[in-house]
Amino acid sequence: MSFNSFGRMFRFTTWGESHGPALGVVIDGCPPGIVLRPEDIQTALDKRKPGTSKFVTQRKEPDEVKILSGVFEDERSDGPRTTGTPISLMIENQDQRSKDYSDIRDKYRPGHADFTYDAKYGFRDYRGGGRSSARETAARVAAGAVAEKVLAHLLGGVWIRASMVQMGPDTIDRDNFDWMEVEKNPFWCADAKAAERWAEKLDAARKSGSSYGAVIEVVASGVPAGLGAPVYGKLDADLASAMMSINAVKGVEIGAGMEAAALTGEENADEIRMKDGAPHFLSNKAGGVLGGISSGQDIVARFAVKPTSSILTPRKTITAKGEETSVQTKGRHDPCVGIRGVPVGAAMMALVLTDHALLHRGQCG
Amino acid sequence: MSFNSFGRMFRFTTWGESHGPALGVVIDGCPPGIVLRPEDIQTALDKRKPGTSKFVTQRKEPDEVKILSGVFEDERSDGPRTTGTPISLMIENQDQRSKDYSDIRDKYRPGHADFTYDAKYGFRDYRGGGRSSARETAARVAAGAVAEKVLAHLLGGVWIRASMVQMGPDTIDRDNFDWMEVEKNPFWCADAKAAERWAEKLDAARKSGSSYGAVIEVVASGVPAGLGAPVYGKLDADLASAMMSINAVKGVEIGAGMEAAALTGEENADEIRMKDGAPHFLSNKAGGVLGGISSGQDIVARFAVKPTSSILTPRKTITAKGEETSVQTKGRHDPCVGIRGVPVGAAMMALVLTDHALLHRGQCG
Amino acid sequence: MSFNSFGRMFRFTTWGESHGPALGVVIDGCPPGIVLRPEDIQTALDKRKPGTSKFVTQRKEPDEVKILSGVFEDERSDGPRTTGTPISLMIENQDQRSKDYSDIRDKYRPGHADFTYDAKYGFRDYRGGGRSSARETAARVAAGAVAEKVLAHLLGGVWIRASMVQMGPDTIDRDNFDWMEVEKNPFWCADAKAAERWAEKLDAARKSGSSYGAVIEVVASGVPAGLGAPVYGKLDADLASAMMSINAVKGVEIGAGMEAAALTGEENADEIRMKDGAPHFLSNKAGGVLGGISSGQDIVARFAVKPTSSILTPRKTITAKGEETSVQTKGRHDPCVGIRGVPVGAAMMALVLTDHALLHRGQCG
Amino acid sequence: MSFNSFGRMFRFTTWGESHGPALGVVIDGCPPGIVLRPEDIQTALDKRKPGTSKFVTQRKEPDEVKILSGVFEDERSDGPRTTGTPISLMIENQDQRSKDYSDIRDKYRPGHADFTYDAKYGFRDYRGGGRSSARETAARVAAGAVAEKVLAHLLGGVWIRASMVQMGPDTIDRDNFDWMEVEKNPFWCADAKAAERWAEKLDAARKSGSSYGAVIEVVASGVPAGLGAPVYGKLDADLASAMMSINAVKGVEIGAGMEAAALTGEENADEIRMKDGAPHFLSNKAGGVLGGISSGQDIVARFAVKPTSSILTPRKTITAKGEETSVQTKGRHDPCVGIRGVPVGAAMMALVLTDHALLHRGQCG
Repeated sequence: MSFNSFGRMFRFTTWGESHGPALGVVIDGCPPGIVLRPEDIQTALDKRKPGTSKFVTQRKEPDEVKILSGVFEDERSDGPRTTGTPISLMIENQDQRSKDYSDIRDKYRPGHADFTYDAKYGFRDYRGGGRSSARETAARVAAGAVAEKVLAHLLGGVWIRASMVQMGPDTIDRDNFDWMEVEKNPFWCADAKAAERWAEKLDAARKSGSSYGAVIEVVASGVPAGLGAPVYGKLDADLASAMMSINAVKGVEIGAGMEAAALTGEENADEIRMKDGAPHFLSNKAGGVLGGISSGQDIVARFAVKPTSSILTPRKTITAKGEETSVQTKGRHDPCVGIRGVPVGAAMMALVLTDHALLHRGQCG
Repeated sequence: MSFNSFGRMFRFTTWGESHGPALGVVIDGCPPGIVLRPEDIQTALDKRKPGTSKFVTQRKEPDEVKILSGVFEDERSDGPRTTGTPISLMIENQDQRSKDYSDIRDKYRPGHADFTYDAKYGFRDYRGGGRSSARETAARVAAGAVAEKVLAHLLGGVWIRASMVQMGPDTIDRDNFDWMEVEKNPFWCADAKAAERWAEKLDAARKSGSSYGAVIEVVASGVPAGLGAPVYGKLDADLASAMMSINAVKGVEIGAGMEAAALTGEENADEIRMKDGAPHFLSNKAGGVLGGISSGQDIVARFAVKPTSSILTPRKTITAKGEETSVQTKGRHDPCVGIRGVPVGAAMMALVLTDHALLHRGQCG
Repeated sequence: MSFNSFGRMFRFTTWGESHGPALGVVIDGCPPGIVLRPEDIQTALDKRKPGTSKFVTQRKEPDEVKILSGVFEDERSDGPRTTGTPISLMIENQDQRSKDYSDIRDKYRPGHADFTYDAKYGFRDYRGGGRSSARETAARVAAGAVAEKVLAHLLGGVWIRASMVQMGPDTIDRDNFDWMEVEKNPFWCADAKAAERWAEKLDAARKSGSSYGAVIEVVASGVPAGLGAPVYGKLDADLASAMMSINAVKGVEIGAGMEAAALTGEENADEIRMKDGAPHFLSNKAGGVLGGISSGQDIVARFAVKPTSSILTPRKTITAKGEETSVQTKGRHDPCVGIRGVPVGAAMMALVLTDHALLHRGQCG
Repeated sequence: MSFNSFGRMFRFTTWGESHGPALGVVIDGCPPGIVLRPEDIQTALDKRKPGTSKFVTQRKEPDEVKILSGVFEDERSDGPRTTGTPISLMIENQDQRSKDYSDIRDKYRPGHADFTYDAKYGFRDYRGGGRSSARETAARVAAGAVAEKVLAHLLGGVWIRASMVQMGPDTIDRDNFDWMEVEKNPFWCADAKAAERWAEKLDAARKSGSSYGAVIEVVASGVPAGLGAPVYGKLDADLASAMMSINAVKGVEIGAGMEAAALTGEENADEIRMKDGAPHFLSNKAGGVLGGISSGQDIVARFAVKPTSSILTPRKTITAKGEETSVQTKGRHDPCVGIRGVPVGAAMMALVLTDHALLHRGQCG
């Protein structure tokens, strides 16, 4: 029942604070014999890492991953392979700027976990948010890269893609949706025009010290029917937990999501035909999950990320001693943390699917 | 890692199919010494049970609960008390109408789990949906009633209330919100006027064999700050999993939910003042959870329930053998399953909070 | 982390007290499509059930099992088959003799859990020991019968047998060991001569109100190499937990067991040759487990059951109020609880192996 | 259900191979606010580390522990304190002697996990045994040192001590038992005279390339009544799993252990009197556990460690390709691995007790 672990069979545990010496993840239950090189993980980390555009925190972290266990390169093999034993990955922190933390040490920043950590634990590591920092998501991305290798090994062509589909109140135009675009703009946005608008808006927000929220959509294609399980081990229940556990997430949707409430039964039913000898759904309101089990359609999950709580405008707050005061957050922050949530959401999708692929194989062969 | 269990320390396992002899739940980890009478559970079950209005399924089930283990009435005590050992609750099914299931046996009903169960397990109990039936939620409600007793014992005045806040595209008016109303209409709706409109609309839908989706809001008041834990054991991550595991749920929100994406950082920050010697938040965009830990504010969760998939209008589908056909669902179904989701959502909230109350006491004293 | 569950993937949860209305078990994670009839389970229960000889408790319990969920008999199938959803089994208690429990209500019986339950929970269900009664093992045997069906389905010819190998200080002669004998005497003893001696001794003990301990040996043949996992999921670690969790067990051994300490490295090494194209071990000091993983040899586990604590000779004790007194246990008790431990040990072996067979398939294919 | 994790609430996960870059442990669920300095852990590791006498492997490892997360030193506190978030401990491997492993790469060493790892995973990290190496126990000892700090914080005067009580067939004399002796001889033996005999015998075994098994006894004093839980979460079931998971262990006993089988009910009953206002047991056949719950007496566990499998005498074996051959293990090995099992057993006792102390507080307050 550990708090910092996720997954049932492909189970990982993350550790580390924003300003500690390092952070990392231990993955247990990985199948053996899968080629896993540091660069497989590094590529994923590089996508997420800070400092890559003016829209994400300017903290400079090389985020170089070390594989400390769980792989072995036999002189007869074509690369290091997973051994089936725990894979320990570590990323050392480098740029823990030695600043004066006295301000946030004593004041609770609204929207942050400062107050609740103190309420729970009696004190907290206030440097950069400690364990509540989004820096933890580097460990998820690293684990997700391993999961992607396992998925490819187990299921062949599963393809996980993610796009920011809304920034602030500005939503993409689905007619412009093109997965080819996501690597071409700093928002991982599949709508090139939206990305242009957002760049302008976010630049303004950044300069004024404000921030925007976002919605991320993650789509997994090529997932076979049959993954997931009733009733608390539902694929969508695990996805909901996975996405909601990401920093700053306040809502999770599968398929039609909250909009499903507004549909009639006729509109919501994804009708089925045969195509090329296989079941073919005429729509995907279900987001690829029925009764908690994958249907073979695209798995579609969305989540809302609240606007960065660290803003320049002073906000009313209190100190740990209960004195009323105000706080203004300076420092190197993302004006839209949702941007960095894109690879994190994709990683969580990969991790949930890998787990369920192994579970399904275990129970049903 | 069992699929049909939920919770870490206050852990329950449900079992049973729609048309089997019975369904039930085993609760493990319950604190000892709490008075628990069958009527404590029965009252909760009666709220949820079918046949109570024309808007819910006309299946007649007394839903009488039996406590089979885990309580003991000493001749010196004032009622049966929990012993700290597993509490087994059973509800016998009565009205499994012996109908001809040959239609749905071979056809996959769109929106139902028929196809995915077959894809996963190779065959399925097709009678009334088997394990995928919403009848399983009776076990959740029973377990939730026990959780409420534990919460009262541990935390005193925690108050969990739930309201339907949207039916189809029709949303309540927050200005009309009055918790006193929820027991007065068949929708558990806190806006009496909305309930009137919905009654009319749903009656029409029922007659035409159509169905509506809904949004349910669950609010827990009086929860102390400090429940929950980083980072995969977050209170909101567990709530997301809990709510998404309910039948037909497609989206889960905490606080501002999906709308958080549209806010600026200034709007989203819940500022803090002191009031009566305690921290007092000026708004609750966070829904009472920061960094995965309760803040002492109301815990606010919402979830969207898709429209009932069983409708009279024929829908295109296929048979288990891959033949194209169509299906029309007759039978005793709810035109808006969201209605019965209200007590289920409240039960899941109680179960998650109880679990975290015990976990917090275990780790932090 | 539930206290009353066992297993990782093939996970079962037992519930029930000695004198409650019923006891039972819920099995989660069972593979689908396995024919499971009540009589498959009943046969196993009948072996364990009380009242079958003068050496076991004279409590009369039919121990009739009901399958409440998790199986479905399609009109096209050749019997009820597991559906992959939770299997709920219930056994109703019949002969809860309405006796006066005032004696043990207030006095702590030495060797029983009376004192510790009170110390932990503040009070206890004192009727027949409540949850601490060996009656719980009926649920294990029922679950074990399901596990045996799964093992046969997954691994083919796995054969689990158990024998009492010691009663009191009297040990069997290995030269007389013949599995054919175990069904022929009330001790499930593979040495017919030892069984004769024991019958005489135990009859004397029974008459004098005394009791004997025992050692049980459980052997699983036909288990393929590769089940188990480093380092806390070792097959032998799980077996140790499984056997030690049985009532009254004080020691568990794998292979050479405690005697391994007295061996030299030369004696302990199980040398390997080839035979019929497969590895062939020349001895089995390891008991079929190396590094926590099965080697393909027989899995050999032994456990010691302490003598029944319920004896006629008065023993010094205290009351719940801390008064010194003495207690003499009357009632229907087994003079050697080890006898009924034989089918229970075999059941636990089947349950552990089934779990690991599924886990291995999940991780390694 | 991870394989490399142990514990329910105080849960730790170990990782690392004998000849990888490092090994370590992540502890989740630790209470906050406990002062934890690297030297608290280092002291424990130094006791276990290789190279400290001629009776343990001459591999030179400083075993220096690094605390990578989970503690924070506020400028106002008197030392680094646990924060309640995961504690990550790492020990870098230094002396992975670059030897030629071609011999054991292809041959299965009898008594080792070489064959079973290959059978399970298809290949293995053969350098020093990889994950199956006793080097993993350094991570247990590190975690155990944290557990001891928590126990002191939670329960005050719990005192965990361990002694080797048998080497080969030579058992200590209980009349000589003196805990003061254990730090004075290289065997951690409470009987000084036995230690002298063993030194002579083991020296001879070492020179001849042979090895001895051992029995270790671990005793925890000051444990309050009430820790543990029925029926699969029994304190003794968890201890059995904990001890059996240690490398080379083949048997585990609680209290009278396997000898309990030879006792009569009268002999086995630990009678109870009052002393200084508290229950006082007149004997401890139960080893401090009744019904899976601690009784307040000393918790007494014993385990048998088989003789080191790496011996100079050639043993018959096969190669990975199925050719018959023989193997002789050279290298830096312990002639009695049981010696280093002493601090490991004590660590596992501390870990199990800490877990149950938190669990008990969670469930029962």
